[in-house]
Amino acid sequence: MRVDGTPYRSIWLAEDGWAAEIIDQTVLPHRFETVRLETLEDAARAIEIMQVRGAPLIGATAAYGMCLGLKDDTSDEALEAAAARLRRTRPTAINLIWAIDEMLAALRNQPREKRQEAAYARAAEICDEDVEACRHIGLNGVKLIEDIAAKKPGKTVNILTHCNAGWLATVDWGTALSPIYHAHDKGLDVHVWADETRPRNQGAALTAWELGKHGVPHTVIADNTGGHLMQHGQVDICITGTDRTAGNGDVANKIGTYLKALAARDNDIPFYVALPHSTIDWTIEDGVRDIPIEQRDETEVTHIQGLAADGTVQSVQVSAPGSPAGNYAFDVTPARLVTGLITERGVCEASREGLVGLYPEQADDGS
Amino acid sequence: MRVDGTPYRSIWLAEDGWAAEIIDQTVLPHRFETVRLETLEDAARAIEIMQVRGAPLIGATAAYGMCLGLKDDTSDEALEAAAARLRRTRPTAINLIWAIDEMLAALRNQPREKRQEAAYARAAEICDEDVEACRHIGLNGVKLIEDIAAKKPGKTVNILTHCNAGWLATVDWGTALSPIYHAHDKGLDVHVWADETRPRNQGAALTAWELGKHGVPHTVIADNTGGHLMQHGQVDICITGTDRTAGNGDVANKIGTYLKALAARDNDIPFYVALPHSTIDWTIEDGVRDIPIEQRDETEVTHIQGLAADGTVQSVQVSAPGSPAGNYAFDVTPARLVTGLITERGVCEASREGLVGLYPEQADDGS
Repeated sequence: MRVDGTPYRSIWLAEDGWAAEIIDQTVLPHRFETVRLETLEDAARAIEIMQVRGAPLIGATAAYGMCLGLKDDTSDEALEAAAARLRRTRPTAINLIWAIDEMLAALRNQPREKRQEAAYARAAEICDEDVEACRHIGLNGVKLIEDIAAKKPGKTVNILTHCNAGWLATVDWGTALSPIYHAHDKGLDVHVWADETRPRNQGAALTAWELGKHGVPHTVIADNTGGHLMQHGQVDICITGTDRTAGNGDVANKIGTYLKALAARDNDIPFYVALPHSTIDWTIEDGVRDIPIEQRDETEVTHIQGLAADGTVQSVQVSAPGSPAGNYAFDVTPARLVTGLITERGVCEASREGLVGLYPEQADDGS
Repeated sequence: MRVDGTPYRSIWLAEDGWAAEIIDQTVLPHRFETVRLETLEDAARAIEIMQVRGAPLIGATAAYGMCLGLKDDTSDEALEAAAARLRRTRPTAINLIWAIDEMLAALRNQPREKRQEAAYARAAEICDEDVEACRHIGLNGVKLIEDIAAKKPGKTVNILTHCNAGWLATVDWGTALSPIYHAHDKGLDVHVWADETRPRNQGAALTAWELGKHGVPHTVIADNTGGHLMQHGQVDICITGTDRTAGNGDVANKIGTYLKALAARDNDIPFYVALPHSTIDWTIEDGVRDIPIEQRDETEVTHIQGLAADGTVQSVQVSAPGSPAGNYAFDVTPARLVTGLITERGVCEASREGLVGLYPEQADDGS
């Protein structure tokens, strides 16, 4: 998508053809800076400290991390060590493991002298496939928004989203935001309620930033607010992303997603989750029970980073000194609360039957 | 309650016998400062800018505001002007209106020369009555915690609360936190999940601070977190306060309370709301429809105040520049999601029948 007129992806190959470059999402929305990843460790750290985040982008970054891990050593040992290092970065997003496995499948049986070329080729494919998947998620999801718009002619369609599942979370287009970009670009009158998404504020910082850059009307709200808005008819549809979709349709996503799904159900508002196939974990039958939930450093809760009056980006402590904090990064929304899944192949029910209907090649996989 | 060994109320008469003094809650937990209220306008502003907050304390501050409004002029006009000014400060907490009406009832038919004395006497009574009501809320509510403790011997009772309904929100003891203080003081093993409570962070700043000062084990969590904890058996009971309880048992409380009540219901966890009688609005039959919800300045969402590395309290911008924000301060939890109301007279069902059972003198009031 465009940033001040210039088209960007969230990750790209540097001009020298071997380093990867990313947008440093830890300093957005206050500064727009790109970072050059030159080593496996650079890529792993970028994922860990969340310079890149969002399940599809984590996968794409891991793919380039595998390329960088082969730079000086294309041995089997280097390949497996790179995979192991990257696997340890974050536990919940399944796209990470998917992308590493894709890279290993493309590289394991290659002769060593061909591995670098094959790695960059597959990493580029993974990125291009993600862009195409997200574009199709938009084409499939926009129909849901058009249906709502048709029922309230002349009025704004209000869409609530949580965290950032926009182009910054993928390689381009986004998952949850792709239908919204498509709707806006078609001239539909849409407005987005962007949940702030504490503790890391991806909604206020990233979703608001990218919607603003694209000109999509939106309003930032505290995470506490969505229930009240839904009670009072101010939300027509919820669309979120997911970091891992279980085979039964349960969806792990940024902490707090479950609360919004409950409010949507209580107010008869459709709650959709948008995802590319790489987010599906066919091996998990009960997402609430079995999807691992990352716990991160408590300072992400006790402190908040923002732009100070003097123009510097500062971290300030917001909670009482000495009080411990808990920092669960994701929760799992049970499939029963999800109206449907928006994928690159179409919209389906959040269930194994629904998913297998779109991905029949997976019918015999899983547990 | 005690602050570093010294007993405090949240509001008290100054030594000179006419000014009121408060703890400036806008700079907690970073600084402990008291503020002297010398005029009606001082009191009204303290409520508006939330140097004092919490429905019962807003009422107590308004009572002293009425005293201050009579300092130089005890005429009927001054009395009514003081009431009108204070009524405009904040719209949702009914204790504000209740306290003003109590003061008017005590003063309207008094001769002018007796009004000052009568005002201070009634304001002191309102404060003492609130302390006593909150103490009894604790005595009634602690039984619920004891019942849970009895069912899990040797294990911690985990209690989730939202916003601050502690002694800082009342004159002393608190509403939601009073049963917790009583349980802790009795030696029960309790632990509190303190919702951060964006946008103004009363949970992280005030609840964590006062629990910490009293030695009650607690953990600060982002508002998004409670649903996940409830799904995984880490919450035994929720207790919150309320700013206005409708005659039908619907409860207006800090924005986000409704989401926690939904999660409690979805996980079969009891959800209690603690309140003194002054919080009940017998005239409202449908709280979701009719309780007015305050909207505050959007900078409370776009910016966050905290302690910077240099020791100063600073405000930093957290959301994308140019993105608008919505700031709804309260939501209404329907009575159907409330397990029970904890009042100074006992615990009742969240319904008109339940409330009238405890307050039979109100049976013929209301609509």
